[in-house]
Amino acid sequence: MTTPFGLKPSEPHTSSFLIKEREQSSLNSKQLSLYIHGEEFLERQERLLNIIENDPVFSKTIRCYQGRSQRILNAMRKDKRILELKRQYRWTDDDLDMADLIVDESRPFSLHRSMFLPTLKNQTTPEQQELFLKPALDYRIIGCYAQTELGHGSNIQGLETTATYIPETKEFEIHSPSLTASKWWIGGLGIASTHAVVMARLITNGKDLGPHPFVVPIRSLQDHRPLAGIKVGDVGPKFGFNTVDNGFILFDHVRIPHNHMLARYAKVDPKTGSYTKPVNDKLSYGTMVYVRVKIVHQIGLSLARATTIATRYSAMRRQFATPQSMKAEVPVLNYEMVQYRIIPLIAQTFALLFTGKQMKKQYLEFMAELKQGDFSKLKELHASSSGLKSLSTTMAISGIEVCRRACGGHGFSQFSGLAEFYGNVLPNATWEGDNFILTQQTGKYLQKFFRDLSSRAAAGPVQGKATTEKYLLEYLTTSAHISPIKSMDDMYNHQYLLKALAHRAARLIHSSLSGSSQIDHYRISEAHCQYLILHNFVHSLPEPNDALYPSLARLCSLYAAHTLESHLADFLEDEYFAPRHAPMVRAAVRELIQELRPDVVPLVDAFNIPDFVVSSALGESDGVVYEKMMEKALLEPLNQTEVVAGYEECIRPFVHGGMGSELNVRL
Amino acid sequence: MTTPFGLKPSEPHTSSFLIKEREQSSLNSKQLSLYIHGEEFLERQERLLNIIENDPVFSKTIRCYQGRSQRILNAMRKDKRILELKRQYRWTDDDLDMADLIVDESRPFSLHRSMFLPTLKNQTTPEQQELFLKPALDYRIIGCYAQTELGHGSNIQGLETTATYIPETKEFEIHSPSLTASKWWIGGLGIASTHAVVMARLITNGKDLGPHPFVVPIRSLQDHRPLAGIKVGDVGPKFGFNTVDNGFILFDHVRIPHNHMLARYAKVDPKTGSYTKPVNDKLSYGTMVYVRVKIVHQIGLSLARATTIATRYSAMRRQFATPQSMKAEVPVLNYEMVQYRIIPLIAQTFALLFTGKQMKKQYLEFMAELKQGDFSKLKELHASSSGLKSLSTTMAISGIEVCRRACGGHGFSQFSGLAEFYGNVLPNATWEGDNFILTQQTGKYLQKFFRDLSSRAAAGPVQGKATTEKYLLEYLTTSAHISPIKSMDDMYNHQYLLKALAHRAARLIHSSLSGSSQIDHYRISEAHCQYLILHNFVHSLPEPNDALYPSLARLCSLYAAHTLESHLADFLEDEYFAPRHAPMVRAAVRELIQELRPDVVPLVDAFNIPDFVVSSALGESDGVVYEKMMEKALLEPLNQTEVVAGYEECIRPFVHGGMGSELNVRL
Repeated sequence: MTTPFGLKPSEPHTSSFLIKEREQSSLNSKQLSLYIHGEEFLERQERLLNIIENDPVFSKTIRCYQGRSQRILNAMRKDKRILELKRQYRWTDDDLDMADLIVDESRPFSLHRSMFLPTLKNQTTPEQQELFLKPALDYRIIGCYAQTELGHGSNIQGLETTATYIPETKEFEIHSPSLTASKWWIGGLGIASTHAVVMARLITNGKDLGPHPFVVPIRSLQDHRPLAGIKVGDVGPKFGFNTVDNGFILFDHVRIPHNHMLARYAKVDPKTGSYTKPVNDKLSYGTMVYVRVKIVHQIGLSLARATTIATRYSAMRRQFATPQSMKAEVPVLNYEMVQYRIIPLIAQTFALLFTGKQMKKQYLEFMAELKQGDFSKLKELHASSSGLKSLSTTMAISGIEVCRRACGGHGFSQFSGLAEFYGNVLPNATWEGDNFILTQQTGKYLQKFFRDLSSRAAAGPVQGKATTEKYLLEYLTTSAHISPIKSMDDMYNHQYLLKALAHRAARLIHSSLSGSSQIDHYRISEAHCQYLILHNFVHSLPEPNDALYPSLARLCSLYAAHTLESHLADFLEDEYFAPRHAPMVRAAVRELIQELRPDVVPLVDAFNIPDFVVSSALGESDGVVYEKMMEKALLEPLNQTEVVAGYEECIRPFVHGGMGSELNVRL
Repeated sequence: MTTPFGLKPSEPHTSSFLIKEREQSSLNSKQLSLYIHGEEFLERQERLLNIIENDPVFSKTIRCYQGRSQRILNAMRKDKRILELKRQYRWTDDDLDMADLIVDESRPFSLHRSMFLPTLKNQTTPEQQELFLKPALDYRIIGCYAQTELGHGSNIQGLETTATYIPETKEFEIHSPSLTASKWWIGGLGIASTHAVVMARLITNGKDLGPHPFVVPIRSLQDHRPLAGIKVGDVGPKFGFNTVDNGFILFDHVRIPHNHMLARYAKVDPKTGSYTKPVNDKLSYGTMVYVRVKIVHQIGLSLARATTIATRYSAMRRQFATPQSMKAEVPVLNYEMVQYRIIPLIAQTFALLFTGKQMKKQYLEFMAELKQGDFSKLKELHASSSGLKSLSTTMAISGIEVCRRACGGHGFSQFSGLAEFYGNVLPNATWEGDNFILTQQTGKYLQKFFRDLSSRAAAGPVQGKATTEKYLLEYLTTSAHISPIKSMDDMYNHQYLLKALAHRAARLIHSSLSGSSQIDHYRISEAHCQYLILHNFVHSLPEPNDALYPSLARLCSLYAAHTLESHLADFLEDEYFAPRHAPMVRAAVRELIQELRPDVVPLVDAFNIPDFVVSSALGESDGVVYEKMMEKALLEPLNQTEVVAGYEECIRPFVHGGMGSELNVRL
């Protein structure tokens, strides 16, 4: 570590505080890590980390000082290197997912793998697999998925781009009829792609049949120049994600052969141009569920990273001490207001990680049933995964920013690892369904489900099967809607806490039935998913005699109590809680925070985010903070010359002449 | 406007929607603008805008594509140009403040004017005014204010830098004893300053007398190179504010003459080194109050800018329409969930702007009293301005992000004007007192005030004078703590709404007295300031027969009702509200939103943020959206070549050889 003038850090060193935190706790963070992630995940992470961390192409040292064009170039080098490594080590798709987590930078080729390939896999005929999928798997063509348009976001039905069939030449003509028809935000399109799957309105025999997917070559395979009739480029700088080339594209009567319409489901007869409707594709819902399950799991890891940084730094940072009393001084993590901001977020992180795991399990069960032709769970899984995607990403994004601010002034530095990171996590609130729009679907589904269930229950006894059915049935068959919680001890009873969140969700659904308010749909979806997360948490707890149980049980209670506190009015409004419950809930949150305080550093250690991924001067596991801040500052390009570039032009005239002389001459 | 292929925008054009919104409303936005800002502000804004907007130095066209070093250089050019213009037009300090608002970019010289000059003005002896203030006013020396250290943020008493007096040579020796003593985050220090006011522990005759201010020359006035014993540089990239050179500095036994200690208050005898304590400086509290008043006003303008963009864009953006039905389709601003997110923020903006105005008035009254030797209002003003700085900046920062997300995908683009802007507003939560720490002071003050008032009230009748005293007295002398609100109509009664917020604040203070919890201090401060903001809003309303009254009265009710809804549990918990009040509050928010909906575009027009400041493809007054998005995208540096720089290295090998051949050779 470089320090100017060979200065020593203050004594005691920050790292000693982390060591103490770990020593004073009896929690086994290794064991907990295994419990959270499982052996496979940890083995994979370590294996790939060893390769990636030691490869200079993936160095994270200077990326924060670079402009966008340089960063995009580096990102492509990472793309290339990953493909080389994939070949060398025979990486699987799971390995590649893990590599993406470790490299921690989306790249121009990212969308090729995450969107272009899956679309080709799912929507091609066997002939088209040869034509497109095979070269795409070999990266002989590089692609993207072009759906969103400049004037049309979530709204597929509003797309303007057309694909008109011309039977005479057996071609489709792809055309952008207006400026707002420009495809926009398409990842990988800006600079990298040679091909695009373009969602365009199929028009044949004069009929507009709505959006369908077409493979359109966009750049020359010889020299990468845009093909005739195509205007393509990058959409410019963004809040985050600046290493991805989100692009725009416009088509001026571009012709493609008939076999470029992806024809596994819908078809156009090449001779007559007549259209064959797609068979109902319930499998595509499965894909949406899968993508959302993945988002929930990864967003848990994002929040884990933020809480890791905020917790460790707060355990080391001392404040309101005089230098003389430095040793005696307490870490800011002992301040109630800091604990109150960070520790519930640690509980939320566990909640999200366990929910990600449970959802994956449910998804796999569902897929197995689906293979037997059983689609019965599809709707509920779709509704829950939509709501959970919305809730979990909203929670994590807000939590990351809370963590950043809890780091005080240094949280504002890019060296905190929480600034650009925030911008990179943000799009999760928008892609794969805008978080507000998703809750509308979930809300409406729950209203309908509740209505149907009421009818069924009125007709005779119903046996609740799935989670939602069970808790709604309990609500419908309970006469006294009053919480059984009587004392502070009851706030540790997970069954009582589950009951409370279930009751609120059911009651909100019930009382919303008279209208159709978007605000109600949002509240219903949120309440339902907060219950599901607690439900998943409770079902992820180990046996009570397990050494890990006490901490996890407390985290579970804290997640619940904190959720209750945040929405207390919902429980008081219908008198499910009496007024005396309110101080009880508030006290429970504070008490649980106190009980968890001694273990918080091992708790975040257990998330096992590698330092290479944490990538923060404030929160890496070794507890070296201020040396890293200085080391990184010394790398700032502005510090590479003794005198800044603009001195002669902008500073010297004043210093040497004041406001009166040289300037005066110029005016 | 450039559009590729000469494409026309979709019909009807986005601008026509804004025109319609303005036509359908009877609100006179010009008149309202005058009511909000006053003639002086508007005249000044227009006068300076004409100069700045037409000066190429201040162009905002390409700044979002530039790397940090280029932007810093441009920022210095702006610094220089502003000083030229100041001289040419004889700009006052108020003019310069307005110029900063319009230029909308903090710069290397910014802290010279905002921190260095005021410190010199307030803390120098007449001799030092000649020595430092005079050349500083003339920019012959350029300075900064160096207080914060790498290891010590808000904590002045923890500062490590020392200034040891050496009577033999009549010098102070400035020294950084450790790495954490490095001054850090100092605006203007990174590249621009020639001098720094350094807060260092004064040590004389072996006694540590705590932090005092010293003027330290840091860069040569000849060639700007760092002086001997000084290590100085920029602290590196940040979440925002990247056009400011926040810097670090370390001192290795640097000697300065005796007269470099700012000696208006505390003094060291040059011969004996004996120390004279400062006289109690209540005026410095006045300065802190003034800075916070300014922050509250400016943060209102920041939220105004965000709501302007979100409101206008949502009024133009159409969704869930098919192209065929485009004309008939509704703007997303008609969706309940969009209204629910944006319209309460418009009410909050008005609330903040009026509170800024009222605070300025109170501050001027206080300063007049102070000149008569009357300090009686100091403590309350200090406590309220601390709490209001915290609450208003927290509200605005969160509101800006809500506005950004309400713009959907395009909100993520830098062209939205809401991405980098967010990063630039963020530091308001930290500087001039961390938002959480500030509430601790306010909370404790309110507890003490309440205790004292209770004793006074118990001893005999008390006549309430200031705002806080009045509402706390009413609480203490009321027996039945039950809201008089009985019907929805009462939700429009500002007196009832004021009563509710006053009651909550007083009750929270009262019930917190038994303990000393930081969480309680936070809640008390927040509740108190939410009441103050409503109080200021009500007292800013025009006469009921004024044409502006209906809209403003609704906005006032909406601010209150929305605050009630957000904190409903606080009112239900002590049964000030009965359960039946809860749906009433929720319904009132929705109803007020509906009533305000027809006027929202003129309402944000009335904020009168110049398009040059709005600087957004989504929200400028002309309603041109998608043309601007495309125009800005075409300026992206990546789009200036047909084929991207890394093609040969990273793309061609795959496209021409696939994963198998060329790559294979390399491995």
